[in-house]
Amino acid sequence: MKIGFIGLGIMGSRMAENLQKGGYQLKVYNRTKSKADRLLENGATWAGSPFEAGKNVDVLFTMLENPGAVEELACGPKGFLNAMNENSLWIDSSTVNPSFSERMASIAKENNIRFMDAPVSGSKQPAAEAELLFLVGGEKKDLDSVRSLFDKMGKDAVHMGAAGKGSAMKIMINQLLGQSILAFSESVNLGMAMGLDKKTCMDVLLKTPVTAPIINIYRSRIDNNDYEPNFPLKHLQKDLHLFTETGYELGIPTPLTSAAKEVYGLAKHKNMADLDFTAVFKFLNDKN
Amino acid sequence: MKIGFIGLGIMGSRMAENLQKGGYQLKVYNRTKSKADRLLENGATWAGSPFEAGKNVDVLFTMLENPGAVEELACGPKGFLNAMNENSLWIDSSTVNPSFSERMASIAKENNIRFMDAPVSGSKQPAAEAELLFLVGGEKKDLDSVRSLFDKMGKDAVHMGAAGKGSAMKIMINQLLGQSILAFSESVNLGMAMGLDKKTCMDVLLKTPVTAPIINIYRSRIDNNDYEPNFPLKHLQKDLHLFTETGYELGIPTPLTSAAKEVYGLAKHKNMADLDFTAVFKFLNDKN
Amino acid sequence: MKIGFIGLGIMGSRMAENLQKGGYQLKVYNRTKSKADRLLENGATWAGSPFEAGKNVDVLFTMLENPGAVEELACGPKGFLNAMNENSLWIDSSTVNPSFSERMASIAKENNIRFMDAPVSGSKQPAAEAELLFLVGGEKKDLDSVRSLFDKMGKDAVHMGAAGKGSAMKIMINQLLGQSILAFSESVNLGMAMGLDKKTCMDVLLKTPVTAPIINIYRSRIDNNDYEPNFPLKHLQKDLHLFTETGYELGIPTPLTSAAKEVYGLAKHKNMADLDFTAVFKFLNDKN
Amino acid sequence: MKIGFIGLGIMGSRMAENLQKGGYQLKVYNRTKSKADRLLENGATWAGSPFEAGKNVDVLFTMLENPGAVEELACGPKGFLNAMNENSLWIDSSTVNPSFSERMASIAKENNIRFMDAPVSGSKQPAAEAELLFLVGGEKKDLDSVRSLFDKMGKDAVHMGAAGKGSAMKIMINQLLGQSILAFSESVNLGMAMGLDKKTCMDVLLKTPVTAPIINIYRSRIDNNDYEPNFPLKHLQKDLHLFTETGYELGIPTPLTSAAKEVYGLAKHKNMADLDFTAVFKFLNDKN
Repeated sequence: MKIGFIGLGIMGSRMAENLQKGGYQLKVYNRTKSKADRLLENGATWAGSPFEAGKNVDVLFTMLENPGAVEELACGPKGFLNAMNENSLWIDSSTVNPSFSERMASIAKENNIRFMDAPVSGSKQPAAEAELLFLVGGEKKDLDSVRSLFDKMGKDAVHMGAAGKGSAMKIMINQLLGQSILAFSESVNLGMAMGLDKKTCMDVLLKTPVTAPIINIYRSRIDNNDYEPNFPLKHLQKDLHLFTETGYELGIPTPLTSAAKEVYGLAKHKNMADLDFTAVFKFLNDKN
Repeated sequence: MKIGFIGLGIMGSRMAENLQKGGYQLKVYNRTKSKADRLLENGATWAGSPFEAGKNVDVLFTMLENPGAVEELACGPKGFLNAMNENSLWIDSSTVNPSFSERMASIAKENNIRFMDAPVSGSKQPAAEAELLFLVGGEKKDLDSVRSLFDKMGKDAVHMGAAGKGSAMKIMINQLLGQSILAFSESVNLGMAMGLDKKTCMDVLLKTPVTAPIINIYRSRIDNNDYEPNFPLKHLQKDLHLFTETGYELGIPTPLTSAAKEVYGLAKHKNMADLDFTAVFKFLNDKN
Repeated sequence: MKIGFIGLGIMGSRMAENLQKGGYQLKVYNRTKSKADRLLENGATWAGSPFEAGKNVDVLFTMLENPGAVEELACGPKGFLNAMNENSLWIDSSTVNPSFSERMASIAKENNIRFMDAPVSGSKQPAAEAELLFLVGGEKKDLDSVRSLFDKMGKDAVHMGAAGKGSAMKIMINQLLGQSILAFSESVNLGMAMGLDKKTCMDVLLKTPVTAPIINIYRSRIDNNDYEPNFPLKHLQKDLHLFTETGYELGIPTPLTSAAKEVYGLAKHKNMADLDFTAVFKFLNDKN
Repeated sequence: MKIGFIGLGIMGSRMAENLQKGGYQLKVYNRTKSKADRLLENGATWAGSPFEAGKNVDVLFTMLENPGAVEELACGPKGFLNAMNENSLWIDSSTVNPSFSERMASIAKENNIRFMDAPVSGSKQPAAEAELLFLVGGEKKDLDSVRSLFDKMGKDAVHMGAAGKGSAMKIMINQLLGQSILAFSESVNLGMAMGLDKKTCMDVLLKTPVTAPIINIYRSRIDNNDYEPNFPLKHLQKDLHLFTETGYELGIPTPLTSAAKEVYGLAKHKNMADLDFTAVFKFLNDKN
């Protein structure tokens, strides 16, 4: 199976590496070529353009920053959709809004290309350790045909329904992630102001069932004021934006998520865009 | 040990009953006397007034609806603080704001009465099954002197610090509770609009670590549209109000909690005050 | 000058009629043909499609519901951009986001068609009475070439800058409109709960300089519980959405506008989409 | 008529001076004595304590920072309510919540003292120029008995109803003030990001009826980045807090006001508490 891979950021580079380790031959593309160095040293081929990356592959993965980036590389005269073989499969693992996935599915179909949205649950470390969970929208039989690939990169790939349904579930999960950390941050921040110490606040809250378990992983960030990016704040804010945008499209109110999106947006505006998203604690806590 | 107990609502009645089952003799008071019937049949004494309930007891528990109710029964010429013996102990298990607990501690002290704030984590069922967690503010030695009482009503009593610190931790927990359900509700509600079915949404979200485990208990509410009150929505909204009010007092921003408080407030205004707090899902979902 | 006009809703029908009264010959198109009846009786020509409406006209106006509707009728193989003559002028008076106007300007340019965004300030009555204010983005000389047309429909056409700048100013104005009514509604609603009567609340507030003068026009809505649509709530909510979306695109926080958007969104979800936008008062006030 | 005056901040000092200019003899008190210097030089008497200020006066004015400050100086064994003569009149011009005014009215009554809440609309300059508008709650005949005093300090004193109704109207006005500036700031801030210049944004918005006229006074703040306090941001945030707190007390949703309160709260937390409240523009605009 010939595989193309576009997008070698924090997530994509690790996913591609696991495919490579699993024995697959990759043709890779990334805006900044240097991020492909390690993959190339280990035998991957460099595709000089998105178009080239999509040419003569059986499966093309994309792992890009936002819907705009996906559309730019996919569509248009030099887009990879014009390069891909009939009946080949495009798997988009970027986090996008479901209506965007549906639109891509439909454009792919016009080009006789199969499409799956397969965003992931899990960030840097699960990506490195092949522990990702893939949330898949598209044809069940298409998913079954590439399970061996998902097995190299993750622990499971769950079929959520038709095209767009993987993206749907993904933005639901990231909405909860964003809310969890922010609600926890407000709680700890007020706790400290009420005279409790930071450690006690976190210890007690993490023992109660009202706190999302994932915070066990992130608490060290807050403990140590360490906001080196694992999952950049601007990306989490983008996901909250996709959630509220989808709410608007479908006429569904999302008052809490909009509020959360704006708090992350303020933090982003105050120079925290490229810190880890857990820096929202720092935003609330800092006096300047 | 002679024990007074004021406030026999959903929580207080069950707590008092567990003390009674544990062999303690109680003198009880409640605004609506009928709620004391079972306790009286099983041997409790009726105190005709809060003043009477506080008279000649070693320990007085209060489990009331809000700070206003506590202040009304405690202070003033006919309040129980004027009735209690020197050096006796008042334990307030109501959910109140920390500065209120501190003020009550100080008024109690002027009357030579010891004070502890000991709000609980857990609602109707844990109260019935003596599985509550007490979050205690006050003197450690005072807590140690009544551990046997807490043991009858709960699984643990944790010393959080000086007076007010129990209340501090309590409003932190309930803030997370309120946010968790609301964020989950927004997620499931949008998921359904995106074409996923309700059960799938909840199944998948509850398997991921971004969802607070307590939602496993509450999901049946949403599954079954069953909002018979266990923890009334108006009480949860009150707790969010106490959290934001404390934020204001201490100059700490609480943007997400204020947003959540207002969503519950809208639900309360639309005739849902006395439904279970999980009815916030219904509020978001209903078209009228 | 031959003029095409697409979009004959509350606003468009009145604008077109004023052009007609001013002596211009129109070719008109609307999804629902019956809305064109009066214009046709008075001499307008029916264009069977958007394509037809754009053919052989010097100027084409569009007044549509949202960016999606504009894009659908403009672009694509059967879109009016494929029908319009070289160097003819497309004037989009729809309320859209500035980046959308910029994109349309650029697509028009590729087709050698001139473009102006010229959204209006003013609703039903000013449209009928030719009292609209046009906020224009595009080439100054293009604006000057069609001032006679704007004069028939409005009191002024102000050049705001390059393409997109008219749309920019428009969403700023409608954001303030939406906020003004909502803030005023919250104030009056609380005033009534505090024991003041509705009329006193409105009389006093309207005498103070903190209240936007436009509310003098809308207060009768609230006085009389009359929410027959003049400017439908769903359209105002769309404009707030365009504002927050543009904020997201440009990295600018819009916390208050997001909150307002969600309140209107809740009202929309509760069956008020097609009422006048001032029904947000009713949403806050109703108990069910 | 003997007059006491407590509270000589930005507002109180100017109001007292106008009474003095009008020929009234004042007994004054302020926490920081130096602020009374000018009044004392011009003939006022220094009252060493709030108690002293209330003794043997016919009318006592208070103009204090918040309800807590009023309660502290009024009630308690050394409070001025214990010093005031029977049937004398206490006029509280502080901005407080209506339920607080009602409570003060009732405590005053127990002491056989008449009470009026008479907060003002207008800030520093109108205070200096005797152009304030008094919003009065209490007995109409009490208001009529002191119209000559209000005439020295303001342009009008309007009877709003029973005790508390002046405070009710006041928080409604300040809620609109806070929202107006914040909504305007979001608009101008986004306008600049969309490529319009600051001056154009403000010029155009101020010409439209969606903008509150009071912004004409404040725009120079934003033009000149001049946030020297006229009406400190922390005081405006307090007023929004009083508004939302009253909403909570009465079961009225205030979603937009809560959002506004939190934005000002974030600005307050970021070292802007003592700047003018118009600095909320700076908060939104600054990148750090």
